[in-house]
Amino acid sequence: MNALPAAPVHPQPDAVLISEVGPRDGLQSVQATMPTAHKLLWIDALVAAGLREIEVGSFVPARLLPQMADVAEVVRHALTHSGVTVMALAPNLRGAQAAIAAGVHKVTLPVSASAAHSLANVRKTREAMVDEVRAVAQWRRDMAPGVLVEVGLSTAFGCTLQGQVSEDEVLWLAAQCAEAGADEVGLSDTTGMANPAQVRRLFTHLQAELGTRAGAAHMHNTRGLGLANCLAAYDVGVRTFDASLGGLGGCPYAPGASGNVVTEDLVFMFEAMGIATGVNLDRLMAARQPLQAGLPGEPIYGMTPEAGLPKGWAHGAPSR
Amino acid sequence: MNALPAAPVHPQPDAVLISEVGPRDGLQSVQATMPTAHKLLWIDALVAAGLREIEVGSFVPARLLPQMADVAEVVRHALTHSGVTVMALAPNLRGAQAAIAAGVHKVTLPVSASAAHSLANVRKTREAMVDEVRAVAQWRRDMAPGVLVEVGLSTAFGCTLQGQVSEDEVLWLAAQCAEAGADEVGLSDTTGMANPAQVRRLFTHLQAELGTRAGAAHMHNTRGLGLANCLAAYDVGVRTFDASLGGLGGCPYAPGASGNVVTEDLVFMFEAMGIATGVNLDRLMAARQPLQAGLPGEPIYGMTPEAGLPKGWAHGAPSR
Repeated sequence: MNALPAAPVHPQPDAVLISEVGPRDGLQSVQATMPTAHKLLWIDALVAAGLREIEVGSFVPARLLPQMADVAEVVRHALTHSGVTVMALAPNLRGAQAAIAAGVHKVTLPVSASAAHSLANVRKTREAMVDEVRAVAQWRRDMAPGVLVEVGLSTAFGCTLQGQVSEDEVLWLAAQCAEAGADEVGLSDTTGMANPAQVRRLFTHLQAELGTRAGAAHMHNTRGLGLANCLAAYDVGVRTFDASLGGLGGCPYAPGASGNVVTEDLVFMFEAMGIATGVNLDRLMAARQPLQAGLPGEPIYGMTPEAGLPKGWAHGAPSR
Repeated sequence: MNALPAAPVHPQPDAVLISEVGPRDGLQSVQATMPTAHKLLWIDALVAAGLREIEVGSFVPARLLPQMADVAEVVRHALTHSGVTVMALAPNLRGAQAAIAAGVHKVTLPVSASAAHSLANVRKTREAMVDEVRAVAQWRRDMAPGVLVEVGLSTAFGCTLQGQVSEDEVLWLAAQCAEAGADEVGLSDTTGMANPAQVRRLFTHLQAELGTRAGAAHMHNTRGLGLANCLAAYDVGVRTFDASLGGLGGCPYAPGASGNVVTEDLVFMFEAMGIATGVNLDRLMAARQPLQAGLPGEPIYGMTPEAGLPKGWAHGAPSR
């Protein structure tokens, strides 16, 4: 009989990866354009806080999103930091080619689970977006095999245009994207309609369908459920979470949608639970300063920054 | 061999009881005093929304809390509604006697888990408060055996005065209160320091210690974790949740503490998950009007009221 290994005395819960989307999702959602120099300072502060994955911009025509006209320069700067996965969003092959040419480690494509949102957001059907994913994955395989291709399935939990989105269609579309060559397929609650039961159900099915290609949870706090939904996703095995410093951003093409999960609050929740994020909360709070300096007058959010860290707070505190 | 019963095809998750604390916890935390007539209209609106347990006031000397000078009249009015458990807070035997004389169904006593908070909040040690619980339970047994005695263990997850609160001390104190005759002992995150892992751990231990006397979860949203903590408590079997309409209230004696869980957001979360609350969300939103009319200029909160219910929202919707 083989001896069993001793159980660990203090089993550590799995660590998580916080994927900061503010410089892309946040900055493209506000009217003002953050000057390039401020973007670079802000990204430096995010890296200094310990964030290891940052979505730094969108590769879209500058006439559509002038806020992102400097994206290639921002990517090049972000790449000077070692140990950070530099991501950018691209809506199509041309954008992905430009992103990869600029040197990103990972390109993320938005594919709408809602047929109505797909037409409103990228003026393409869902099927046409799967073809775009296939083209990007193929070009990547031939030209830049080290680059990762991610799909974020937006409106996966409901749509402000069409209302409910069928879970079967979400899973069908996720499978299509994986089959087309996406390395990861995450689910986005673009419209803040998700609830924890739905999050657990849909991510459980996603993992059963895609295995290790099941990707990140991108939750919104529109109705206050952002952190509860992240907790629910963690409970069923999700380990990568999108969040935005100061809660900056949303989706301008989903009417009424707002409220990315606030990075500061999400990191606080996980760290308080003893789940390692690799992020230093004091330095994360400090990263709000360059964000505000680069977007004067723009409101930013966060309950933990407003309340401050609890008395007696310490990483590794026994009561957590 | 006995035949096993067929598994239900669509098992319904357990329902929850939302215990509305706004008329007590909320109103005693604000500077202004809501006129009695407005209190009665507000309570009527809460009942009309389907709330079945309401903490309608505090039995404390009017010179200490002028907002509660009319509490006996408010209790008498609330009692005209059938099917509603009318609760009041009492800090001591004298208050409990007055509450029971006014006709409450349940009296709740605040006992601080933190030694420092106990002295600041009720000017008594924790041990002296356990004696008070014993006196109330004894008097109730002799004089009003139908009345329930609840203890809410405040600062059970941390204290702004002393920092961490030992979980062993919380459980010891809960056992003392149950032994002294309390029918239910709940746990309050008075200071907004709880995290979901701690909530699951502490309520699991509380249930193991007290069995059916383990009581409600009273969570605060100070750092944005209110709903995540309620979800965590539900996951380990808690079925009664305190909340405050519009998030009114906090604890004036725990510096920096603020932010009761917003009833509207909590009900939205549970209903969206298919967990019955008995509360109608449209009518609950409507109950904000008499609250605001009675406290002009007082800020109230709520993400779901601000965002509105999602497109396609319906009780019993298949996607939830």
